[in-house]
Amino acid sequence: MEEFKGEYITNKFSDRIYQRICTLPIIDYHCHLSPKEIYEDKPFTSIGELWLASDHYKWRLMRTAGVDEKFITGDAPIKNKYLKFVEVISTAFGNPVRDWVQLELEEYFGIGYKICPKYANTIWDLANKKISDEKLSPRKLIERSRVEYIATTDDIASDLAYHDLLAGYKVKITPSFRTDNLFLTGDIKAYKEYLTKLGKLENIKINSLDSLKEVINLRLQYFIKRGCKFSDIGVEGFPSVIHGDEKAAATFKKLLAGSDISDEDKDGLFGNLYAYLGKIYAANGIVQQWHLAVIRNGNTKALLASGRDSGYDSVGMEIDIRNVQKMLDVLCLTDSLPETIIYSLNPSMNYPLTTLCGSFPKVHAGISWWFNDHSRGMTETFNTVAELGHISSLVGMLTDSRSFLSYVRHDFYRQHLCEFLASKANESTDMEEAVSIAEKLSYTNAKELIGL
Amino acid sequence: MEEFKGEYITNKFSDRIYQRICTLPIIDYHCHLSPKEIYEDKPFTSIGELWLASDHYKWRLMRTAGVDEKFITGDAPIKNKYLKFVEVISTAFGNPVRDWVQLELEEYFGIGYKICPKYANTIWDLANKKISDEKLSPRKLIERSRVEYIATTDDIASDLAYHDLLAGYKVKITPSFRTDNLFLTGDIKAYKEYLTKLGKLENIKINSLDSLKEVINLRLQYFIKRGCKFSDIGVEGFPSVIHGDEKAAATFKKLLAGSDISDEDKDGLFGNLYAYLGKIYAANGIVQQWHLAVIRNGNTKALLASGRDSGYDSVGMEIDIRNVQKMLDVLCLTDSLPETIIYSLNPSMNYPLTTLCGSFPKVHAGISWWFNDHSRGMTETFNTVAELGHISSLVGMLTDSRSFLSYVRHDFYRQHLCEFLASKANESTDMEEAVSIAEKLSYTNAKELIGL
Amino acid sequence: MEEFKGEYITNKFSDRIYQRICTLPIIDYHCHLSPKEIYEDKPFTSIGELWLASDHYKWRLMRTAGVDEKFITGDAPIKNKYLKFVEVISTAFGNPVRDWVQLELEEYFGIGYKICPKYANTIWDLANKKISDEKLSPRKLIERSRVEYIATTDDIASDLAYHDLLAGYKVKITPSFRTDNLFLTGDIKAYKEYLTKLGKLENIKINSLDSLKEVINLRLQYFIKRGCKFSDIGVEGFPSVIHGDEKAAATFKKLLAGSDISDEDKDGLFGNLYAYLGKIYAANGIVQQWHLAVIRNGNTKALLASGRDSGYDSVGMEIDIRNVQKMLDVLCLTDSLPETIIYSLNPSMNYPLTTLCGSFPKVHAGISWWFNDHSRGMTETFNTVAELGHISSLVGMLTDSRSFLSYVRHDFYRQHLCEFLASKANESTDMEEAVSIAEKLSYTNAKELIGL
Repeated sequence: MEEFKGEYITNKFSDRIYQRICTLPIIDYHCHLSPKEIYEDKPFTSIGELWLASDHYKWRLMRTAGVDEKFITGDAPIKNKYLKFVEVISTAFGNPVRDWVQLELEEYFGIGYKICPKYANTIWDLANKKISDEKLSPRKLIERSRVEYIATTDDIASDLAYHDLLAGYKVKITPSFRTDNLFLTGDIKAYKEYLTKLGKLENIKINSLDSLKEVINLRLQYFIKRGCKFSDIGVEGFPSVIHGDEKAAATFKKLLAGSDISDEDKDGLFGNLYAYLGKIYAANGIVQQWHLAVIRNGNTKALLASGRDSGYDSVGMEIDIRNVQKMLDVLCLTDSLPETIIYSLNPSMNYPLTTLCGSFPKVHAGISWWFNDHSRGMTETFNTVAELGHISSLVGMLTDSRSFLSYVRHDFYRQHLCEFLASKANESTDMEEAVSIAEKLSYTNAKELIGL
Repeated sequence: MEEFKGEYITNKFSDRIYQRICTLPIIDYHCHLSPKEIYEDKPFTSIGELWLASDHYKWRLMRTAGVDEKFITGDAPIKNKYLKFVEVISTAFGNPVRDWVQLELEEYFGIGYKICPKYANTIWDLANKKISDEKLSPRKLIERSRVEYIATTDDIASDLAYHDLLAGYKVKITPSFRTDNLFLTGDIKAYKEYLTKLGKLENIKINSLDSLKEVINLRLQYFIKRGCKFSDIGVEGFPSVIHGDEKAAATFKKLLAGSDISDEDKDGLFGNLYAYLGKIYAANGIVQQWHLAVIRNGNTKALLASGRDSGYDSVGMEIDIRNVQKMLDVLCLTDSLPETIIYSLNPSMNYPLTTLCGSFPKVHAGISWWFNDHSRGMTETFNTVAELGHISSLVGMLTDSRSFLSYVRHDFYRQHLCEFLASKANESTDMEEAVSIAEKLSYTNAKELIGL
Repeated sequence: MEEFKGEYITNKFSDRIYQRICTLPIIDYHCHLSPKEIYEDKPFTSIGELWLASDHYKWRLMRTAGVDEKFITGDAPIKNKYLKFVEVISTAFGNPVRDWVQLELEEYFGIGYKICPKYANTIWDLANKKISDEKLSPRKLIERSRVEYIATTDDIASDLAYHDLLAGYKVKITPSFRTDNLFLTGDIKAYKEYLTKLGKLENIKINSLDSLKEVINLRLQYFIKRGCKFSDIGVEGFPSVIHGDEKAAATFKKLLAGSDISDEDKDGLFGNLYAYLGKIYAANGIVQQWHLAVIRNGNTKALLASGRDSGYDSVGMEIDIRNVQKMLDVLCLTDSLPETIIYSLNPSMNYPLTTLCGSFPKVHAGISWWFNDHSRGMTETFNTVAELGHISSLVGMLTDSRSFLSYVRHDFYRQHLCEFLASKANESTDMEEAVSIAEKLSYTNAKELIGL
């Protein structure tokens, strides 16, 4: 395939499309990059740190290959962890991490060696020399990747200090309004501490649903002042019922008082809050993102040992599509439906969810999320969105990542997008139409959504 | 691909199979064509009307492409709607409507131009000239498509006046017994009005479950006299329990009295009615069709603005396969199981449903329905039915359409069928066997089912 | 494809991998072969008997092709049944049985004729001559297939007499601990008789949950003495809650007393038993197998006529993945998690289940089970396991079969495995890595699991 520009390009038509869009800038409208790290811009220490310090995708992959935890989150030296990782990658056929790290080596380090035990030390030396020679740092990777816009993911109690410090940076680094902690009421003591902290930020004591909503709205304004265009929620479950304000307020009081609450009442309270969030998002031009169907921290023993985001989440049951429909319907009926992007971790939801999105204006199926973010998963999303509606309704790629190297995945995505288009279009008559879709799904749809 | 007979034929083997079956007549055993329009046989006015007057598949596609409602169900002139549609189609890569309209242009208008803004006016002129020159009308399209048999879809309260008027027409136009309205009890006032109307047709006052059943059976006989061979139901949900006659009768009384009914009792009543319907279908040689897993009118605001069947239905959750199994089991145990075809809108049901069908005689998995009716969806059905049983158990294609142009989709299907067979069979040893299956699934299975 | 070694090999790279692993021995760690038949080693009577005497895969296939039951489980002469079967097979495009029987003819009978009516008599004569000339028998087929290890499936009340008799046989024939009957409480009289029988084997009267557990553990020791390394369960459903010992014991008392038990209590009792089983498996190094999402005997009329395992099971709804997660979590937290393999009959569970397995050590997604055991199904499993974790975590192939001819399916699997690897690896740089994975998934992973 040496003749083609991209590694995953298999024919001349997709190559022609790809060449027209491969250098477009990147808008990363959902990720987990640290604004602190971007601000401080410290050079990296080693390819081992870069790859393995915090990437739970890689940790999980190593575990499923049978690697001892010592070499994953344990106290083995980083070089040893790296060597184990290389061994695992060399036989991880079909796993997207294998594709990604190879692309990362080529793109950011100019290293063409195959990642395998034989070349492990050579790659280690070359990559670390590059890091050291060029003082590779977060901003260097961001800029080299032609990133134009980054939306980080921030708890609504965040002070966004680093976003303020990054205000003058030429790449726009904006916060996203992540409301998960409003719904994690399992540990009521921790929940109330969270509300106290949240209220203090706005000098309001949260002792009622009304005061909570007031604070939420003030926090949203705080975020908006710092460029926020996106909200996000990624808790388990989805409200099955939307209680009215009075009933929800009574439930909230009970919750704060530590009383027992029925599952239905809790669900009704959450439904009320979802509806409120939708309303203020719509009023403020904020894009609403729902991340559905996940099991968080499924292995309690591992949670106690390694904490959250260590590679123990998994795909949840489909959310009952009726519940999602009811929420969208209520928002739409009350003219409170913001631009919305809905992601599902469970591919069994693709058909119900994508067709439901098509029943509402401004509601988009999201690009393949997390465990679905690989060659087949992306191609499945292209197909599903295209079969069930217009391919142009897809907003485009995001990284959802904690790693600055992940920008190669935009390129990975673009190659697969061009392959998809080439498989559906006719080279001799559809070239410009295919390019126009490739541009939208690589760049301009996201740009328009943000209002740039 | 110029060398092959069909657009979607990719190799010589499938072309050989295709050439053997492509001119077989069409039996369209489930559609939504209007018998009135067939009877009146008025020439069409324009390609715009033909395509866009009532086709909610196209409306939905335009919406997902971001077209303003004005150009969809609004008051824009038809030519302007057409131009918007052409624009949308030109980039609707992967959407089956794009395939269908191109095939329609070629088949019925002899127009080979690609549907795109550049040729929009040319196509408009050529197509409308053809319509006007040849006085293209419903019957002309039906006959040109070699249609032999049409089963329309008719509420059981229909008087079937146009079926009577069409009795002498050389193409058999028969009614299907669609019972949805028996189960739409949400608006009890409307429901009772419906029952009153229904009872009047048979001079029976419906004031009990027994009298309802009596009327249903009389209506069925009325339909059968007009050639009815198929029944159909496509409501949301599926009964989870089958109450005995006494309990169900008591629930029905309560329903008519406007009393509150538990979900379980309502389900038990519906289960009782499903079982009754199965029994009279079996007794009268009627094929039973169940259309499962749909959300109807998910967007209330749009329903109020545009009415039903405007493109706001979507794919529902899987029906609990246990409920379907229980119904089939009861019908089978009581020797009341008619020939049955079960369609699911949710592809997650394919495996449970297809294997369940294989546990009962005379029960068939249906061909890819609605949102599943595209290249991948049809190929998925071929594969699933073949993997889980014998490919010959598939009845064959239907259009499920409101448009007289949709007969090209039988050809679309046949090409995909031949492609599937060619991918599984051996050209040098299996040619005649492959052709025999292609014939069954294109024509003879449906013909046998009807008893022609 | 004549140039390649295997029928399903399509390119040189996969052929190169295949040639390196195709002669590895077979470890069949889950099947339903009869140890009695292996011990007695009676020569077979005819290809008709071999194929059609008890294989409900073939019966189901014939039924879906419309064959009269007389030729399936009825009293037609075996030759006539065989002729019907051949007719069905000749057009069963896409069904795996068609692939299997052709491979069986070639491998064990050296017959290259295509299975079709034209050659039906020739094949009958040649195959039966071969059977008669070579006195083809269970052991001959086992040895010719290079089988090294067989784990049969045995009710825990089995005396394993034939396993004892087979102790000296050069191929290891071991029992598996199948606990289904502990959970089939629907017919309480039959259940209590079963418990009485079970208790007698260990001279313990089962009148409490404690005594039941004592007997279970003693039976397990009995099985282990005969080489047992695997347990198995394949009932419908999965416990949604795990009751403590006291509560579960009270429920069990009620159950034995014939009292009514709530669904939740029964589920809690079953959950308690699952947890107990996991604990003793972990303590004894037994591999735990869960077979999920099946409907057993869905057609009552057929059950009454033909009994169990006659081809009337089907794919069940997905099990709520939360329930599976809770069970694994409890076992893991209490250090009672054995090596576990989880199979699902419903492919909609692939993503939730495979990612859940990746959240726990020693828990593996199983290879495509039953209705999923065909070309697409196996390839789907390879892809899913690879995308969501490391491909090496897959244990490997098993037959799950009642037929001694089924060993060709290991070869069928190996060819598909090599095709998968060739599609993901690079021929010039990944050859040895691909072979190492092929070896693991064909042989060494299973061998290590058994501790050979």
